[in-house]
Amino acid sequence: MTSPEAREEAVLEAVRQRRELVNDAIPEELPIKRPERLYEASRYLLDAGGKRLRPTVLLTTAEALADVESLSAEYRSFTPLDESGPVDMMAAAVSVEVIQSFTLIHDDIMDDDDLRRGVPAVHEEYDLETAILAGDTLYSKAFEIMLETGAEPDRIVEALDVLATTCTKICEGQSLDVTFEEQTDVSPDEYLEMVEQKTAVLYAASACLPAILLGADDETIDALYGYGLDIGRAFQIQDDVLDLTVPSEQLGKQRGSDLVENKQTLITVHAREQGVDVDNLVDTDDVDAVTEAEIDDAVAELETAGSISYANDTASDLVAQGKNRLEVLPDNEARDLLCELADYLIERGY
Amino acid sequence: MTSPEAREEAVLEAVRQRRELVNDAIPEELPIKRPERLYEASRYLLDAGGKRLRPTVLLTTAEALADVESLSAEYRSFTPLDESGPVDMMAAAVSVEVIQSFTLIHDDIMDDDDLRRGVPAVHEEYDLETAILAGDTLYSKAFEIMLETGAEPDRIVEALDVLATTCTKICEGQSLDVTFEEQTDVSPDEYLEMVEQKTAVLYAASACLPAILLGADDETIDALYGYGLDIGRAFQIQDDVLDLTVPSEQLGKQRGSDLVENKQTLITVHAREQGVDVDNLVDTDDVDAVTEAEIDDAVAELETAGSISYANDTASDLVAQGKNRLEVLPDNEARDLLCELADYLIERGY
Repeated sequence: MTSPEAREEAVLEAVRQRRELVNDAIPEELPIKRPERLYEASRYLLDAGGKRLRPTVLLTTAEALADVESLSAEYRSFTPLDESGPVDMMAAAVSVEVIQSFTLIHDDIMDDDDLRRGVPAVHEEYDLETAILAGDTLYSKAFEIMLETGAEPDRIVEALDVLATTCTKICEGQSLDVTFEEQTDVSPDEYLEMVEQKTAVLYAASACLPAILLGADDETIDALYGYGLDIGRAFQIQDDVLDLTVPSEQLGKQRGSDLVENKQTLITVHAREQGVDVDNLVDTDDVDAVTEAEIDDAVAELETAGSISYANDTASDLVAQGKNRLEVLPDNEARDLLCELADYLIERGY
Repeated sequence: MTSPEAREEAVLEAVRQRRELVNDAIPEELPIKRPERLYEASRYLLDAGGKRLRPTVLLTTAEALADVESLSAEYRSFTPLDESGPVDMMAAAVSVEVIQSFTLIHDDIMDDDDLRRGVPAVHEEYDLETAILAGDTLYSKAFEIMLETGAEPDRIVEALDVLATTCTKICEGQSLDVTFEEQTDVSPDEYLEMVEQKTAVLYAASACLPAILLGADDETIDALYGYGLDIGRAFQIQDDVLDLTVPSEQLGKQRGSDLVENKQTLITVHAREQGVDVDNLVDTDDVDAVTEAEIDDAVAELETAGSISYANDTASDLVAQGKNRLEVLPDNEARDLLCELADYLIERGY
């Protein structure tokens, strides 16, 4: 039996290997060209880092479906299940990362967040106009890149349909998120619906797109979509927990910023139901003014109310459910990695 | 022979008839649903009016290609040239109008314009967050709507490719436009390149999409794309002329706002080459502070430099070139209408 540490190290190594390939592919798909300032701004966050979890889910799902050994297949020329013409799976992987980056740029404007991945947000590093336009450029580029996979036309059409409806749902989720900031009666179910739309759908798209592009059956596509929704919701819940528990430096932004900005999380929604005066846990509305001691006190109160455990338990249940759905896949190393990735999403420390 | 007035009235009637059908289709393709505020904001400018010129070009081109009598075919179920399954041409028409509306919402934020079509801009009527998100929602909705045309998969793929690259070019053009505001050495050619990307490509897409969706040959697709580029550039040049010559009330925004905001137009680019001190034609940078008399004086100076005639001549040449390209189409009533539409774009008074 392997130790938990060894298992986590193996997952991280698998993520790292795929991340490097994705990092190489991003400048190939999104070269800096005229007008340079626009493309530099579009690439700014992509180049600043990121774990590339969604592309990793996508590439690993492709390997599991094709039943090939880890990293043995050429992602740029991946053989479909019916052995029709090769599919550029890396293009699909970059496409979802580009969508993710577009949403981060626009979200940072909307949430007035100054820092992202330890660097200034795009609207801070450049300006509001450039940030809006950089996001808009990435938006259409994601579609252009997905159009280059070379898959059969009916599969490309289905893949683009998933991409477009995913983007619409992300907007709907972000809209709900903004509305929730002014509400004090959001239920856990409403919160989870919002998280599904805002965050989980892009994991769902990442998991089901290889099945679509490689020509898998509808049952497989649906099961993988469900896996993505489950682990995506778990990921967001864990993100909300980490926002309270990880030092600012490691987080790349102020710890507790969600609390300061009155963002709803599963933790605050639960705490409010337990009678905690969530709106007054932190006195200030300004992330630059809050102290570490204030955040510590707030976290202690949320722990006493059982809200952090509640969030952890919900995330664990979602991960277990997601892993079960993977039984549609052949039993292989890549499927095991998808299970371990799911575990990692809620065990990760940042 | 018909009089110019009778000809213009006939074009306007043809535009009106198609506009009404497009206006009926917009709420069908973009119903107000949860989250309501987001969809209301997304529909706000679309519902405020607009001439629907791009959808009219698209629908009329479809009629010309199919060689059917004006308004005789059912746009929702249009027969392709090879008589394969019916195509929802109205969905394609709404899709380009939705793209247009998304760009207006984001452009108004970037240009800090308060008024559009005589009503407050979306970021004024709602707020910045909602306006960004409404634009983002329309962006993906345009792709979703185009995916619903029911055309053959390879044609849908090509249509989506045109839509995606068009959006990318619009962003590139808008980026150049913003950059040009701080430059005093923009040449007429550079200006026309910017206009091609920012404005003309959506006319080009509108003209060539029916050819793609109905299965026309590449020569026809290319010629129609060229027609759209030509009339689209002419349209923007005329818009720049109208910004100086049409009363604010009729324009739906302050007359001369381009001059006040130091926006480059073909007129100012030409005038600068003639030695006019364009940057000091108007003293203020604030559209709310400028007087009608100041605008009148500026226009008189631009007229003396020959810059307004130069813009009018350039637009006329482009329209003539665009009309020539239509010879790939069968000689029919719809083709005549496309010629008259081209003339209308530069003869219109607002």
